[in-house]
Amino acid sequence: MPTKSPVIVDLKFIPKEVEDGLKGAFSGREVINLADPIHEGRDLSGIDYAVVWKSDPDLFSRATDLKVVFSGGAGVDHVLKLPGLPNVPLVRFVDRSLTTRMSEWVVMNCLLHLRQHHAYEARAKAHVWEDLSQPEAAEITVGVMGLGVLGQDAIAKLRVMGFKTIGWSRSKKVTDGVETFDEAQLDAFLGKTDFLVGLLPLTPETKGIFNASLFSRLSRKGVIGAPVFINGGRGGSQVEADVLTALRSGTLGGASLDVFEQEPLAKDSPFWGMENVYVTPHVAASSDVKALFVAVERQIERFENGLPLEHTVDRTAGY
Amino acid sequence: MPTKSPVIVDLKFIPKEVEDGLKGAFSGREVINLADPIHEGRDLSGIDYAVVWKSDPDLFSRATDLKVVFSGGAGVDHVLKLPGLPNVPLVRFVDRSLTTRMSEWVVMNCLLHLRQHHAYEARAKAHVWEDLSQPEAAEITVGVMGLGVLGQDAIAKLRVMGFKTIGWSRSKKVTDGVETFDEAQLDAFLGKTDFLVGLLPLTPETKGIFNASLFSRLSRKGVIGAPVFINGGRGGSQVEADVLTALRSGTLGGASLDVFEQEPLAKDSPFWGMENVYVTPHVAASSDVKALFVAVERQIERFENGLPLEHTVDRTAGY
Repeated sequence: MPTKSPVIVDLKFIPKEVEDGLKGAFSGREVINLADPIHEGRDLSGIDYAVVWKSDPDLFSRATDLKVVFSGGAGVDHVLKLPGLPNVPLVRFVDRSLTTRMSEWVVMNCLLHLRQHHAYEARAKAHVWEDLSQPEAAEITVGVMGLGVLGQDAIAKLRVMGFKTIGWSRSKKVTDGVETFDEAQLDAFLGKTDFLVGLLPLTPETKGIFNASLFSRLSRKGVIGAPVFINGGRGGSQVEADVLTALRSGTLGGASLDVFEQEPLAKDSPFWGMENVYVTPHVAASSDVKALFVAVERQIERFENGLPLEHTVDRTAGY
Repeated sequence: MPTKSPVIVDLKFIPKEVEDGLKGAFSGREVINLADPIHEGRDLSGIDYAVVWKSDPDLFSRATDLKVVFSGGAGVDHVLKLPGLPNVPLVRFVDRSLTTRMSEWVVMNCLLHLRQHHAYEARAKAHVWEDLSQPEAAEITVGVMGLGVLGQDAIAKLRVMGFKTIGWSRSKKVTDGVETFDEAQLDAFLGKTDFLVGLLPLTPETKGIFNASLFSRLSRKGVIGAPVFINGGRGGSQVEADVLTALRSGTLGGASLDVFEQEPLAKDSPFWGMENVYVTPHVAASSDVKALFVAVERQIERFENGLPLEHTVDRTAGY
């Protein structure tokens, strides 16, 4: 029996979580975790697999014989831009855990804005007991842009919580019981949307799509006063100067931003601590590292048994 | 056709919401909204119905001929303590809107604690981009005490969000697919519970049930470090001195409190602004005033047509 190819791991996650996740993973196969200085300068040629997230710039010039590259996350725009990415199958991480975590974040942020959490926290800080007029979820339409696995799961859970939901994707998608809109119907979609949730991949078509023009077309008829922008997709999809202007002018009444044009977000960014803006450091759907390695193992097993890989990326579409 | 009896409305809600809610309500019947000074000193004898929430102390000595009293909320402990409450049917407000609003609050607060919102807000305030190790909902067991309409709806929605859920009520209740515990099994229930959600009515049996002894029996094996206490039921069920001690000693890792022993919460209460404690002013499930009046009208119609009233209170049980 031939020796199994090692797996290169180059994940810029929390190092301890990667180490813990690797315990017991890839049984019968060497793991080369590049976070470990012991591998510095090691010859990586002849190795078949790499699992990467924000990997070292010289990875692909060192690992010249990769047969499959695995992305450590659902989005692959970071991976597609890596210098020297070889022309081999690129596999996205599609995982129950990643999907449910994103929905946790989306539902929590829709509820934070619905339930006026910021206003109540300000009152608590001032020791003020005062109730505010409170719409219920059924009075709010959440418009989700991006109807992949993440968007569909978020919609299903928002509906259970009582929100009205509608969906948008470039090409029309049919989702059970949900009104959906395509590229040509963007205006109609925006005109109905009180809370806009972005779960789009970053592609040439979605770059900068969340801009002043789009924000100005959102519904202003909602019970909540002004529309809210919630982005759990990619920072490159938003024009941050426009988000800021819209928040300051009241075109947007609030925002939840997990992603930014430049990450980490600059120390002096005005988004930090803005009123009714929740900033999180790209953690909406952190990959569960153990689940990632289980998913990679399953795909490697398929690959070595001659079965087609699942969740491969269409590089032209960008997702 | 005899003239229809007027309806007395004595609701200490937001006055404008009551006024708005009354527009178009109780068609063909006079409404006596006691918030309107025009009714001061008016003779209220001979009137059949009153809708009350924290009503005036002299209401029942003025309205001596009531046939039905309607509570403006799901809980009736406030109403049961009203001086001179006549021995006539007392009807609770059971409403889709009230239930879904409570579940919004419960799910949001479970997500806030799961997703380490307080820690991320502190980092945002300090302009610090740092991700934290993040368990997912499936790693947390939410134990719900109180398995009435509110508890069952909350459990169903927490499950959809991925949480493990268990339930407790004094007498065993069977809820589809959920492990439930009764009075004798309280220890077993607490030993499995990471997030404790209180949705109990206030009765002699539930008064002070959330105390030091109970908190000390909660699970400390959870991934989140220390258990969390979330009370959307009644303030009288919690011993606030014990909640404070438990939070300060780390027996509890956090709390969400919508209800208090004394409301409004005192200006100098230490709960305001405590770390990882969310305080809201008894708004988890504000009654939707329009829905309340629709529900009352429906019951009056049943009553006048000789049909049995629904959602009447068992005064011995207290709910």
